[in-house]
Amino acid sequence: MSAPKKVVLAYSGGLDTSIILKWLQTEYGCEVVTFTADLGQGEELEPARQKAELLGIKPENIYIEDVREEFVRDFVFPMFRANALYEGEYLLGTSIARPLISKRLVEIAEATGADAVAHGATGKGNDQVRFELSAYALNPDIKVIAPWRIWDLSSRTKLIDFAEKNQIPIAKNKRGEAPFSVDANLLHTSSEGRVLENPAEQAPDYVLQRTVPVEQAPNEPEYVEITFEKGDAVAVNGEAMSPATLLTKLNELGGKHGIGVLDLVENRFVGMKSRGIYETPGGTILLQAHRGIEQITLDSGAGHLKDSLMPRYAELIYNGFWFSPEREMLQAAIDKSQEHVSGTVRLKLYKGAAHTVGRWSEASLYSEKHVTFEDDAGAYDQKDAAGFIQLNALRLKLLAARNRRLK
Amino acid sequence: MSAPKKVVLAYSGGLDTSIILKWLQTEYGCEVVTFTADLGQGEELEPARQKAELLGIKPENIYIEDVREEFVRDFVFPMFRANALYEGEYLLGTSIARPLISKRLVEIAEATGADAVAHGATGKGNDQVRFELSAYALNPDIKVIAPWRIWDLSSRTKLIDFAEKNQIPIAKNKRGEAPFSVDANLLHTSSEGRVLENPAEQAPDYVLQRTVPVEQAPNEPEYVEITFEKGDAVAVNGEAMSPATLLTKLNELGGKHGIGVLDLVENRFVGMKSRGIYETPGGTILLQAHRGIEQITLDSGAGHLKDSLMPRYAELIYNGFWFSPEREMLQAAIDKSQEHVSGTVRLKLYKGAAHTVGRWSEASLYSEKHVTFEDDAGAYDQKDAAGFIQLNALRLKLLAARNRRLK
Amino acid sequence: MSAPKKVVLAYSGGLDTSIILKWLQTEYGCEVVTFTADLGQGEELEPARQKAELLGIKPENIYIEDVREEFVRDFVFPMFRANALYEGEYLLGTSIARPLISKRLVEIAEATGADAVAHGATGKGNDQVRFELSAYALNPDIKVIAPWRIWDLSSRTKLIDFAEKNQIPIAKNKRGEAPFSVDANLLHTSSEGRVLENPAEQAPDYVLQRTVPVEQAPNEPEYVEITFEKGDAVAVNGEAMSPATLLTKLNELGGKHGIGVLDLVENRFVGMKSRGIYETPGGTILLQAHRGIEQITLDSGAGHLKDSLMPRYAELIYNGFWFSPEREMLQAAIDKSQEHVSGTVRLKLYKGAAHTVGRWSEASLYSEKHVTFEDDAGAYDQKDAAGFIQLNALRLKLLAARNRRLK
Amino acid sequence: MSAPKKVVLAYSGGLDTSIILKWLQTEYGCEVVTFTADLGQGEELEPARQKAELLGIKPENIYIEDVREEFVRDFVFPMFRANALYEGEYLLGTSIARPLISKRLVEIAEATGADAVAHGATGKGNDQVRFELSAYALNPDIKVIAPWRIWDLSSRTKLIDFAEKNQIPIAKNKRGEAPFSVDANLLHTSSEGRVLENPAEQAPDYVLQRTVPVEQAPNEPEYVEITFEKGDAVAVNGEAMSPATLLTKLNELGGKHGIGVLDLVENRFVGMKSRGIYETPGGTILLQAHRGIEQITLDSGAGHLKDSLMPRYAELIYNGFWFSPEREMLQAAIDKSQEHVSGTVRLKLYKGAAHTVGRWSEASLYSEKHVTFEDDAGAYDQKDAAGFIQLNALRLKLLAARNRRLK
Repeated sequence: MSAPKKVVLAYSGGLDTSIILKWLQTEYGCEVVTFTADLGQGEELEPARQKAELLGIKPENIYIEDVREEFVRDFVFPMFRANALYEGEYLLGTSIARPLISKRLVEIAEATGADAVAHGATGKGNDQVRFELSAYALNPDIKVIAPWRIWDLSSRTKLIDFAEKNQIPIAKNKRGEAPFSVDANLLHTSSEGRVLENPAEQAPDYVLQRTVPVEQAPNEPEYVEITFEKGDAVAVNGEAMSPATLLTKLNELGGKHGIGVLDLVENRFVGMKSRGIYETPGGTILLQAHRGIEQITLDSGAGHLKDSLMPRYAELIYNGFWFSPEREMLQAAIDKSQEHVSGTVRLKLYKGAAHTVGRWSEASLYSEKHVTFEDDAGAYDQKDAAGFIQLNALRLKLLAARNRRLK
Repeated sequence: MSAPKKVVLAYSGGLDTSIILKWLQTEYGCEVVTFTADLGQGEELEPARQKAELLGIKPENIYIEDVREEFVRDFVFPMFRANALYEGEYLLGTSIARPLISKRLVEIAEATGADAVAHGATGKGNDQVRFELSAYALNPDIKVIAPWRIWDLSSRTKLIDFAEKNQIPIAKNKRGEAPFSVDANLLHTSSEGRVLENPAEQAPDYVLQRTVPVEQAPNEPEYVEITFEKGDAVAVNGEAMSPATLLTKLNELGGKHGIGVLDLVENRFVGMKSRGIYETPGGTILLQAHRGIEQITLDSGAGHLKDSLMPRYAELIYNGFWFSPEREMLQAAIDKSQEHVSGTVRLKLYKGAAHTVGRWSEASLYSEKHVTFEDDAGAYDQKDAAGFIQLNALRLKLLAARNRRLK
Repeated sequence: MSAPKKVVLAYSGGLDTSIILKWLQTEYGCEVVTFTADLGQGEELEPARQKAELLGIKPENIYIEDVREEFVRDFVFPMFRANALYEGEYLLGTSIARPLISKRLVEIAEATGADAVAHGATGKGNDQVRFELSAYALNPDIKVIAPWRIWDLSSRTKLIDFAEKNQIPIAKNKRGEAPFSVDANLLHTSSEGRVLENPAEQAPDYVLQRTVPVEQAPNEPEYVEITFEKGDAVAVNGEAMSPATLLTKLNELGGKHGIGVLDLVENRFVGMKSRGIYETPGGTILLQAHRGIEQITLDSGAGHLKDSLMPRYAELIYNGFWFSPEREMLQAAIDKSQEHVSGTVRLKLYKGAAHTVGRWSEASLYSEKHVTFEDDAGAYDQKDAAGFIQLNALRLKLLAARNRRLK
Repeated sequence: MSAPKKVVLAYSGGLDTSIILKWLQTEYGCEVVTFTADLGQGEELEPARQKAELLGIKPENIYIEDVREEFVRDFVFPMFRANALYEGEYLLGTSIARPLISKRLVEIAEATGADAVAHGATGKGNDQVRFELSAYALNPDIKVIAPWRIWDLSSRTKLIDFAEKNQIPIAKNKRGEAPFSVDANLLHTSSEGRVLENPAEQAPDYVLQRTVPVEQAPNEPEYVEITFEKGDAVAVNGEAMSPATLLTKLNELGGKHGIGVLDLVENRFVGMKSRGIYETPGGTILLQAHRGIEQITLDSGAGHLKDSLMPRYAELIYNGFWFSPEREMLQAAIDKSQEHVSGTVRLKLYKGAAHTVGRWSEASLYSEKHVTFEDDAGAYDQKDAAGFIQLNALRLKLLAARNRRLK
């Protein structure tokens, strides 16, 4: 790969990406464009602008954007239509944010005439894969620079040295190692590393960023009603909300009740296992609610097909293949199923869990007339079941007879 | 179907199966053999013996058996190796008990020279299918009699009339309709029908049979450690237990903490949706624990394959195909994966949920050496990730280039 | 089911459906509407009109339609986008025609105010299921009458008697049993029953309806080029053709070269195995060609997902679930993949087989630059493969190390 | 990676692997052990011994083995139980041989105290991946050396120069480039590269190594009967044969009749498309025969599950994951299904194709009694079909009613 001339950097304004910024300038002598996105991580963005300016970035090369609505509308919601869970439990909060960042990096590169993008993910994790596969899928000619795989700043000491030598301001609490590493966006917070590295040991409560420890959650349950249209949540307690506003609201509710904390050992795409503590308060409520509304509006054929496709879909997102033809194929199938997934679900939030307690819909397929224990007025002829069972049994009978014959 | 000469009846000793018993005698003039099993439903069996005798069953035709160990060892545990959930949430507590009952019915029929078996499931539900598919798969020549699909005793009044005319004792509280219908075994209790038929309305707390309402659960968490060998739980808090003893223990713990209550609208195999309240206290803890131990002992290739097979496996059990070649094929695959699923999981039980907080194993695949944020002493070469990403990206780049070319 | 008042009958004009026509009139005293479709079965339709009139059907109640273009465009082509094969070999020629017939039956019922439809499929086969599931999926209130499951005309003699008593003309060669039963449409001919019932015995050549016995095919190969746009064939040897015209052309070519004859024992949805001889000359060429064009225009991610979905898709069509949400979901996924499946395939037709010998496309993803054995000018860095392999191997190494440790 | 001390080389005796042998000696100063296997590629092995000796390999370090029986018994036959086809068409002839070679390389390394193995596969293909994943899965500490990814002998000229400088004998016809590259074993021959690189152009007949061009095949068909036991072929025309003998026999028959030639553009695991001409004469007959015997001995539940698992299974083998837990899980499922796959299939071999024309078995599930068009004496009650259809239709009716209601 030839040296880049102009690089768009995914820039948080923090120490690590500031070091990367400076390193790109010194290593390649290239122009740097910074991209700082508000994905709902809960940090001010303006300090990133000031820091970028301080590091010599021209004002027209500083991109600061609030992408929360796009994030929830075009990434989080489509994923939740699938009830996606990686390895049975993980709601993919980090995974789903990466493609959006790469998309904007590539778009800004094209707008500014940059030939490369850069990110601050390490060589051990999944995020490098997600950033880079997304970037290459959107622009096959883009260069992607991953300084952590290249440079020799392999210890905290070397990083601090580099920062000091390059006049990068260092906040007091950044001189030492953090006790664990955090990633956050509107969907979730993940914490991993260091004090969390032993999967036998319980994670300390102080790890939690947006969720109260479950014992400290209110002693009274709280009820919430979520309304869906075509598979997407559109209102909470009857109040219509934009996607990001709605997820913010659910995060507040979930965080207050200690909902959506997960301690998981998962398999990274790069081949190793890692342990993380994930907080997905609003997402956990949303998943439960979406399942609730599907229970009455989705036919079993569609539902079972969705269930069987889901693990592959979740794996694709986890592995960084959001912008791949196979994810888009699965999305087309999933979206097709959601046409009538509309209605309202009532949930009880209490001490770490969201329990579905009711659901109703104009589009309900639940037929009390058919299922009732009372007289069904001929809606269902129980004698049909005899034929249904006989023909389902026929092959099993033929098998049993064959197996007896051969004994 | 010609009239049966001798019928083995799945007999609970309750009013409904007593009416069936008498109906079989009068309708077909046939000899009846009763089979009453202790599956952990929590009822005395001896009254069933007395009642059968009262209804004229010869002592040698009364089979009363404790099958709890067989149930958990040969049915529940193999199913839990798969982390089976039907429609994302249901732990299949009723489904998994039916094949065992059918197996014993068929075996007793063969031992007593009976040509038919009979069950008390209605024509609207899944249980008729499960009973009958299992019976036919084990004996292709057996007759199965399902009185609810045949007789005209279609209202409570007619049933009571029949009972009175035939000197069948009627407990006082059985004269009217029960407010809901219950099925129970060592794995779970299900409640459905009547007061539960409107899926929009919250189920009342009095439905709960073996679980305290979550608000009444202890205010202090309790920790439990479950040890696995080859995918099956073998000890609780370090104490080795037989399968049924272990599940009983977990039920106590789970019930006390309000764990495993599910309000679900599901799709029956016979084509309609139904709403049930399921209590699976021990099973919910067990599932969580099994996932926890798999997290560190199962490779991602095996784990992801299991995840992708699970929905089909669960559907087979739900639909009554336990004794089918395809369930056995899937079981072979799943069992193959469990060879090293051994170790211990620590869970926190609190207010309706079981949270995995730690797991450890001699067979762990978790490599702190690889995953660490600290110096890994060369265990992992971050530069490998560059090649890994490049080749995973190659097809995406070729696609992107093609698509640009065609624009 | 109450008696029907007006019935739309799928009417071929042959003896069997003429008997059904009369039986409906006499059994129910109902008005009959006939629907006779040209699906490419190769029979004149006008005799059906005359026969219907003779049997007392009012002219306005006689529907005769050429649906060949709709059949190929809306049913055959979408199915071929999936490369659908049932049980590895069957191209679903009968299965795919049934939904279209049911669709028109239901539409005509709605147009004529009929409350029922009727078909001539027996109670042992798949076609009854396909007709009826399609009808119910399109009109939940329609009645479906399947005389073969109802009447007592259970032998040839009784049928002939009924015909004679009711002045139904009987062609000479229809008095006895045919040596085998045939179904035909533009996609295929199937033959089954009687002389074909022993799957150990080779089918005689005289069974073949539209294909020459392979030994009699030309001794010289013939080449054909088929052009695709978005997954559908649009031209043969450079000549643009409508869907039905194109399939007719491929049938001529395939029939001449003895292509697409299949002797299969398959599993019917109703639980038994049956043996059929299928001739799908044009379809076999088309499948081969479609695969050929996908080879260069479809990415592996999309292709492998398609391959994994195909068996389920084919099973749905075979079982009669064309008009089901899950088939439509799969179709949405498949159609999504076909956007760039455009280009031309060259095949050699010879003695029973169609061999792909070349394929080219503007949308090709094949990159000679990458794959070449010659100098690739840096298109591909072989060193990337080392990292790719290392990370793919990592989990296998961790497994091997664990397994060695435990020994 | 530190320099290897002793390397086991997969050695063919040809020019390329001789150059590798010498390069290993000179590059690393290490001891080389050669492993030359007879996999049925049709070459003499003794010249490889002489050549190795000439290049200074100690006699005790020269391993020459006939592994044909192991190859067919433990690799080819298990794979054929699955009816494995990669991308719908490829019988995986090269893929399936690599794990066996790696297994012996690793075993010999352990026997001789070698710390590394080496192979002659390039950095662009799949074989490097297959060799290395297999090696690492069997010995996590082994080093694998792939000289083609390391050295700078990147042109024919440089290779010849190196050979001349190192006294490696060069056969006359090896000085120039071969017009295409060949891999062969008992299952197949693959040809690719150079004259075959344009997928639009028909491959010349001279590419064929073991199959006559189809036009030159006999004008008379030949019949063959293949007998299976538990899914594996055990006899041809009634004569019992060992696995390798049997496959050799089928290769003769298939080669004579021009059977099993495939022109394919496939997707390599490393991300590019490549075009190959594959000859699998015996394997093509075997696959057809295996399907034939499964048609009558395998239940639809088992068969359809196998069909749905097959694409993943084939992909695993293609990608080099033979020695992976997920391949072994799938194998366990597949093997479970084969218990009664026993019986005989009769095929007609003619002009490039193997047509199943008959099959019979003690274990047949085909029931002429059920399927017959004649009187079935009550084996099957056609009225059962009505109930079967009604309950399969119920959800579709509920859907249709819902959708009408919402319009």
